[in-house]
Formats: sequence, structure tokens, C-alpha cells
Amino acid sequence: MSNPVHLIGAGPGAADLITVRGMRLLQQADCVLYDALVQPEMLAYCPQAVLIDVGKRCAKASTAQRFINKMLVDAASKYARVVRLKGGDPMLFGRATEELVALREAGFEAEVVPGITAALAASADAGVSLTSRGVARNVLFATARVGEGESASDWISPILAADTTVLYMGVRQAEAIAKALLGAGMPASTPVLVVENAGLPACRQWPMRLAQLPDVGDWQLDGPAILLLGQVYGEVLRAAQDGLRQFA
Amino acid sequence: MSNPVHLIGAGPGAADLITVRGMRLLQQADCVLYDALVQPEMLAYCPQAVLIDVGKRCAKASTAQRFINKMLVDAASKYARVVRLKGGDPMLFGRATEELVALREAGFEAEVVPGITAALAASADAGVSLTSRGVARNVLFATARVGEGESASDWISPILAADTTVLYMGVRQAEAIAKALLGAGMPASTPVLVVENAGLPACRQWPMRLAQLPDVGDWQLDGPAILLLGQVYGEVLRAAQDGLRQFA
Repeated sequence: MSNPVHLIGAGPGAADLITVRGMRLLQQADCVLYDALVQPEMLAYCPQAVLIDVGKRCAKASTAQRFINKMLVDAASKYARVVRLKGGDPMLFGRATEELVALREAGFEAEVVPGITAALAASADAGVSLTSRGVARNVLFATARVGEGESASDWISPILAADTTVLYMGVRQAEAIAKALLGAGMPASTPVLVVENAGLPACRQWPMRLAQLPDVGDWQLDGPAILLLGQVYGEVLRAAQDGLRQFA
Repeated sequence: MSNPVHLIGAGPGAADLITVRGMRLLQQADCVLYDALVQPEMLAYCPQAVLIDVGKRCAKASTAQRFINKMLVDAASKYARVVRLKGGDPMLFGRATEELVALREAGFEAEVVPGITAALAASADAGVSLTSRGVARNVLFATARVGEGESASDWISPILAADTTVLYMGVRQAEAIAKALLGAGMPASTPVLVVENAGLPACRQWPMRLAQLPDVGDWQLDGPAILLLGQVYGEVLRAAQDGLRQFA
């Protein structure tokens, strides 16, 4: 096959937040393997393609990943133009490495097209920069690892050292995350912004302080959500004090 | 005016690495204020628009930013559809906050469209994930602050705590950065990937170890470049040992 397999970042979900390059490759694809987080509207770019749903939200992750790798190699053997469409950006919490290795070991070339990661979409929605002169000179993108045994505290020290932190995939563990961060010395007054469905019309945002974060675990949010922490969210928190009361 | 001003992330430079939403807003714009890092090919999306170059690569940054804020407010007063096109993503080292505040204080609404930041484009080019299970669970995006006096060491501790680090705008100070990181205890063997012109056809990559980083300061790179540090670059470094010798 002369065409490389393209691993494309779909971005946060909205069909128009994929890159132009990603859209054009979808329009030319023979076969598209897509994630659970990819919205149906985006698949409208490729009505000509064979669509394969490899979503793995509920499956055991390691088994599911080996299955996806196999599906990807099979598709590359069968079709000339194969796209692997992944939510967000493939190179950030996307496990792209496993898929790239599987493809290369099977003799296929692969190229990556970057996507808008949730932290950037959430920041655009909120109108608050991740970095800001004099307030935040750096930002950490991380996942919380509560309840993972003895290495559980490994994930906290980078957060304490960073000015701004974005926690991916952490909302369901909000109570345990808040407890761990407070226990490690992060001030209870630290501004936090919870963003659900970043980049989509259904986007919702809740500014709060770290002390209030445990309540979020009970909210039963429908869509994917991320937690943003740091002093850059102080202003949006103060501006939203009145709006907050409806969630109290 | 009923249309909001759009602050759009142009991404790393290639015309097809802007989002579909960004491209469509450019196609409808009456006036586009653009950065030095925006490539001419991208401005081909908006031949109908009045183009204003507000690049500030060589100007004094604070003066230039006030001037840009004024130009932006003036344009919003004059044109119905104004786009502010910024290299990379507006919310990450983009100083978007100042521009958003200036617009809102002048009574204009503003919306942000996210863009592909250089770290994601460089990772796609290199085919190496910023995070990887068991190797790197988090990534820090930061700027180096060498030669800024007594606060100079503030920028190092988040880097030492993070698994992967991306340093924006640091290549010209490569020697001072390497000296500071080595002095703070980062191992000389730490894998480093230097990426110039991420996301563009002219992209060049050099894997090396931290001990070799000081040499980069002499390379006189033409395009924007970023430094990526961490164990995730160990494999690409080993694979490229032969290729490296041409730069020795």
C-alpha cells in the first residue's frame, strides 16, 4: 500500500473543530475506525467510507486496545485509505504509540494529524488562558491516579509544582482527587473550573474553589469533563459568584 | 455590532492545520489582524478581507501588545466581521487575555476558536506521544526563564516534577537552559527532541541527550523551534543514533 494510515485527532467533538487536513483525509477515506467520543456529525464528512466503531468506553482497556490494534492492521491490509479517528489529540492521553507500533510492525506506514485537545477547547469556551503573564507561566496536563495503591501519591507533586493544571478524565473521582490534593497541602481556596462537553454546544462550566470540588462527584455529568485548577481561574470564579448559587 | 470578534488559533503554520471553524470564519471575515508566525498560505482563505499585519517578533513586547489591543478595538469599531489570527493556540502562551479584556472593556463581544499548539504538531511530526502508559503520565508546557534575575530558578522545579516537558521559545537560550537544568539535578542522559517548524513541510527534528543541548544554541535555526524533554524520547533517540552523526 502506498498511502500511510492516518491517525487523526478529531478534537473535542464538534464537527468543525477538526483540522482542515483531518477533514480532507476523512473525505477521501475508504475506511474509518472511530472512537466512542467522536460525534456522528463528524462522520458526515466521510459518507463513502466503511465505518468501524472501535469505542471502548466500557470494555477492559488493555484487551480493547489489542483488539483495536488488530482491527487497524486488518483495515490497512484491506483498504487503500485508512483513517483512525481518535477523540482529542492522538499524542496526549491517546495511546497512539501502541497503534503506531502495531501498524509499523505489520509493515504499514502511519502519519499523525494533530487535534484540538480538551484543555484548549475548554479554555476557548471559558475565555480564560491556561497561561497568563505574572499569574501562570506553565501548565501541566495530567490524569489523577486515585486508588491505584502505593504509587498513588506520585501524581500529586507535579500538580503542586505547576502553576495551572488540567486533569483529564477525573470528574467521577472528584471527591478523592480533592481529598488527595488538600491532604498534600494545596490551599482549599484554589480556584477550580469544571468544564463538561468542551467545544460542543452542550458545554457547561462551573467555577468553584477546591474545597467545593467533592460535591461534583455527585452531579452525574453526561458528557466528558475535565478539571482545570489554578489562580488563572480566580477572576472567572469571582465574576460567577452569583451564578454559582444555583448549584449550591 | 452583533458579530463577536473571533480570536482564532492558526495552529503551527500549515494552512490545513487550522480548524474547519477557523477557516470558515476567515472566509467570511471583513478584516483580519494576523501575527508574524502566520504563513501567507493561510491568508489565501480570506482574499476578501482587509489584512493587518500586527507581527511583533522584534518589537518591545509590552508596547506592541498595547498597540495590538488598540488596533483590534479600532477594527471592531469599523468592520462587522473581525478575526484576530494568532499563531498556535490563543490560550497557551498567546496573551489572549489582554486582547479579550481590551475588547470587552471597549464593549465588544469576543469568542475564541482553539488552535493546534506547537507541542501537538511536533509530536505528530515525530510520531512520539507526549504521554505513554508506564513512561509518562503527565506533560508540562512551559517557557524557560533564564537570565531573569532572582526568580530565575522558579521555572525549573515544575520541569523536574513533570514526566515530559515542552519548552516553548527556548532554543536561542539552549546553552543557558541546559546549564540550569543540569545544575538543578536533571540527568545529563535525559532524552531531548528539538523540533523546528513543527507542522510545516520544512519541519526538522534532532533527538539528543540533555548534555548535547548546549550545542543547539549555535545552530542559527531559521524557524520557530521547541524543546521536548523526557523519557518518551528515548526510543526515537536510540533509533536515530546514526542520523545524529551528521550534526556532530
